[in-house]
Amino acid sequence: MYRSHSCGELRESHIDTAVTLSGWVAKTRDKGFVVWVDLRDRYGITQLVFDADRTSAALLEQARNLGREFVIQVKGTVIERASKNANIPTGNIEVLVEDLKVLNESKTPPFTIENDTDGGEDLRMKYRYLDIRRNPVKNNLIFRSKVTMEVRKYLSEQGFIEVETPYLIKSTPEGARDFVVPSRMNEGQFYALPQSPQTFKQLLMVGGLDKYFQIVKCFRDEDLRADRQPEFTQIDCEMAFVEQEDILNAFEGLTKHLLKEIKGIDSTSFPRMTYDEAMAKYGNDKPDIRFGMDFCPLTPKGGTFGFNVFDNAALVVGITVAGCASYTRKQIDALTDWVRRPQIGANGLVWIKYTEDKTFSSSVNKFFDEAYLAHFSKQMNAKPGDLMLVMAGETNKVRAQLSALRMELASRLGLRNANEFAPLWVVDFPLLELDEETGHYHAMHHPFTSPKPGQLELLDSDPGAVRANAYDLVLNGNEIGGGSIRIHNKETQSIMFKHLGFTPEEAKAQFGFLMDAFQYGAPPHGGIAFGLDRLVAILGGQETIRDFIAFPKNNSGRDVMIDAPAPIDKEQLKELNLKLDL
Amino acid sequence: MYRSHSCGELRESHIDTAVTLSGWVAKTRDKGFVVWVDLRDRYGITQLVFDADRTSAALLEQARNLGREFVIQVKGTVIERASKNANIPTGNIEVLVEDLKVLNESKTPPFTIENDTDGGEDLRMKYRYLDIRRNPVKNNLIFRSKVTMEVRKYLSEQGFIEVETPYLIKSTPEGARDFVVPSRMNEGQFYALPQSPQTFKQLLMVGGLDKYFQIVKCFRDEDLRADRQPEFTQIDCEMAFVEQEDILNAFEGLTKHLLKEIKGIDSTSFPRMTYDEAMAKYGNDKPDIRFGMDFCPLTPKGGTFGFNVFDNAALVVGITVAGCASYTRKQIDALTDWVRRPQIGANGLVWIKYTEDKTFSSSVNKFFDEAYLAHFSKQMNAKPGDLMLVMAGETNKVRAQLSALRMELASRLGLRNANEFAPLWVVDFPLLELDEETGHYHAMHHPFTSPKPGQLELLDSDPGAVRANAYDLVLNGNEIGGGSIRIHNKETQSIMFKHLGFTPEEAKAQFGFLMDAFQYGAPPHGGIAFGLDRLVAILGGQETIRDFIAFPKNNSGRDVMIDAPAPIDKEQLKELNLKLDL
Repeated sequence: MYRSHSCGELRESHIDTAVTLSGWVAKTRDKGFVVWVDLRDRYGITQLVFDADRTSAALLEQARNLGREFVIQVKGTVIERASKNANIPTGNIEVLVEDLKVLNESKTPPFTIENDTDGGEDLRMKYRYLDIRRNPVKNNLIFRSKVTMEVRKYLSEQGFIEVETPYLIKSTPEGARDFVVPSRMNEGQFYALPQSPQTFKQLLMVGGLDKYFQIVKCFRDEDLRADRQPEFTQIDCEMAFVEQEDILNAFEGLTKHLLKEIKGIDSTSFPRMTYDEAMAKYGNDKPDIRFGMDFCPLTPKGGTFGFNVFDNAALVVGITVAGCASYTRKQIDALTDWVRRPQIGANGLVWIKYTEDKTFSSSVNKFFDEAYLAHFSKQMNAKPGDLMLVMAGETNKVRAQLSALRMELASRLGLRNANEFAPLWVVDFPLLELDEETGHYHAMHHPFTSPKPGQLELLDSDPGAVRANAYDLVLNGNEIGGGSIRIHNKETQSIMFKHLGFTPEEAKAQFGFLMDAFQYGAPPHGGIAFGLDRLVAILGGQETIRDFIAFPKNNSGRDVMIDAPAPIDKEQLKELNLKLDL
Repeated sequence: MYRSHSCGELRESHIDTAVTLSGWVAKTRDKGFVVWVDLRDRYGITQLVFDADRTSAALLEQARNLGREFVIQVKGTVIERASKNANIPTGNIEVLVEDLKVLNESKTPPFTIENDTDGGEDLRMKYRYLDIRRNPVKNNLIFRSKVTMEVRKYLSEQGFIEVETPYLIKSTPEGARDFVVPSRMNEGQFYALPQSPQTFKQLLMVGGLDKYFQIVKCFRDEDLRADRQPEFTQIDCEMAFVEQEDILNAFEGLTKHLLKEIKGIDSTSFPRMTYDEAMAKYGNDKPDIRFGMDFCPLTPKGGTFGFNVFDNAALVVGITVAGCASYTRKQIDALTDWVRRPQIGANGLVWIKYTEDKTFSSSVNKFFDEAYLAHFSKQMNAKPGDLMLVMAGETNKVRAQLSALRMELASRLGLRNANEFAPLWVVDFPLLELDEETGHYHAMHHPFTSPKPGQLELLDSDPGAVRANAYDLVLNGNEIGGGSIRIHNKETQSIMFKHLGFTPEEAKAQFGFLMDAFQYGAPPHGGIAFGLDRLVAILGGQETIRDFIAFPKNNSGRDVMIDAPAPIDKEQLKELNLKLDL
């Protein structure tokens, strides 16, 4: 038996108990006549003590030679600590060691195993197994395990069945790029790794398993942007005999359960907003509603503004930043520079200060007098002391730019409180999205999403106007889940494929099995999928998903710890009937 | 709202309630003046009634036109059933339909959606979504979900953390063949899909997460034998600061919990047996101990048997089949033919009958007199009425052959009761196994398994004699789990790799990250992995894992429903820097 107790559980009530502990040497302090060792395991830290009076000389010497991260086993007696440490739960006791065994030595670790480490990202990733010993990473992984357990408990109690769908499936060129897997037994053929179990969960609905979920790895061979992973985890869900309302209620229930169990937060009904409202009010389909700064469109007093920049713009819109009329010129210039950065790409920023003494000053004094600025301030619900920031231009661009500014200001003003949770349903998404490069429409959600009733006809005349039975669950400005009511009818699915540019042959080759299935009594159905990595990060009050993944890949899709991907044997290639073509 | 109740929940207490049901038309019976429809969903069947007196002519006509597997929604009132059906929980009521809506039509399904279907295996796989509507398959999937939930609940309560390890890892030519995944972003390089998360779970132990589990898909590109799948699911577990005894206790606890929660069975301590004992007593390292027929070695009265077949054999061993002395010559010939089939490959079978009247007859009367046969019967613990079956030859071959015969006889005699569960730990496996073809030793479990203390030295002198800290959990003659205490020391691991034929360079290239990790304070650790597919099938009282997998592949590794694997675009190949080489 390696231990009688963990390093996190001994208390004053254990005083005089003989114990055996195992763990890592976190720290050694040598005062000559006495040596203290902090022994660490997953559960905490316990102080070990060796002293010249009560410890044999040999044992004291042994303790002195312990290096950082040595793995040791000690036997000893719990004693009261002279100078107590209120910062740790074991701080009232220490263990007077009678026997010490080194279970494994350690080279000096390449970074310190402490909450704030001196290790950079690259080093931490290469030695991820050491990084995981650090509390922040360890606690994130434990937190993730707790969240997934709560998801499973809740959904199981609601009658959902977890079904494993296959990982070796078929490649569909539509959508993001697949990872493929050459088949040795089927020459010249390939499996693909699933981007999501979408078609399989729909087939489970056809199969009558009316409440399905799965926590499942998905794969996308994309050029990685920051904080994207080639493999990621989804909470994938589907229900049959449901309308949109049933799905929203079911998964609002799940989300409330998580907020309650994980964060201790009671939530009321989640607000809902259409996609169009969200775009108009926040310039964004995943608005952070923890704070205001809603978009306020500006209209001229008469027919025109008499200011070219505004008059030539498709949209003139602003946000009111409460209490920031006192911003200095330098602060405002900094904001202007921020929106002009290539990542945002704005031409400029109009500012209007409504000062505490109820006067106005602005960057557009030349064009608008005090009364006109007062007119704007009414449109923007500004109060004395507020700063108004206005942008003008092409609608989609201005919305994106002002939305970015709104989020940036909220961060600077400390309005994005990680301990506050503001869920929001965004509904009625467009069915199709115009690809500006190709001029083609593609599915905004995926090709299996159903249009709103009666809108199928619009597909020919005004495809961009068709709204879908599609919805996103947004939490603190992040899309944490998205789904739709699916098409369950072969003809409708064929029309959709046609509009997405599939020939009937292509549709049959890729999704024939699904359209076949629709002919054998497919029930109405719909579902949702949550991005688990992101959900866990947000619930954990953080933004970086990598910190919640045990062994993440870097931005080149590499695992730098195991050094993968890597070349493979010629023999292996030959068996797969493949040649490199570099 | 598509339904107020499921098709499985209405009872007499619901009589006079207005209800809305949705489901599939399982059956229609048309008596002219009255039409009955069995409406089916996941939860059961409810009888719908339409009759000329109480139903409009139009509605009656609509009911008449319903085809099998049509998806319908009905509104109606629960009424008492005139002729009750005690076989189904809803058999006392029916629903008098007032409104019927066809939600989706169905072509005639290619096989009947009934417990005993007329569909063959191939057809059922092609239309797996229809097969899943059948109770046996549906119930298996629900059962599987229940088992995994119980595994997770139990292990979580015991402090285990579920950690997701990566799917895109590095290929290791050692062991079974990997599925590989070409990397587009890293030209000419490949990921591999994990055969198990072995090295990652060991790194988690180095990382201090001392109790890990994961229910995880694993992949093996093997030529598929019957009932093997290229992707399969493991309950993967690892613990740090443990000895073999700790692991056995922890996972005996899990197995007991499953037997209790899933099957309602209380179990006592699981018996244990060494590998050597199991081989000697059952000729098999995964013996079915639900019944006897232990192996009894035969020894001559004097120095020799005086029977060449026995005298020239390394092993003469038999089993006693209770109460089968009455077997006819024809029955015994059938057994002899059975062991002579190429799959078994025995030369023949010696039989000895110990009749109820205490006389002996045998196939070797020429060589052994009555007294000699009585001597054998003592060695074999035979009683009057028993049949003794004896085989002789090379030890390993005879053991395998007699073991197969023992299992076959047990099946024929009905001794393999699917509702009885006989778990068994088999311990002290050999560390290495001789590959008869190559003459090389390879790891019996895997290269990370530790030898028994003090046996490392034997590796040079007598590699086959080295025993490992390795154990299997056997249930009803199936290995449901296997594991070992791992090596946690770089030097020992290097010695192992050397003995397995790795050059130091190969070891470093493939497992350098693990050996590096061992230098930074790796704790003693060990673990186990359960084959979930098999475990679920056995708990479900069945032997075929395919029936417990939602979308299994066939023996060529194909998914015949979605028709995968399949050729991919030239464009896709080009992006991956690959060429077909057929």
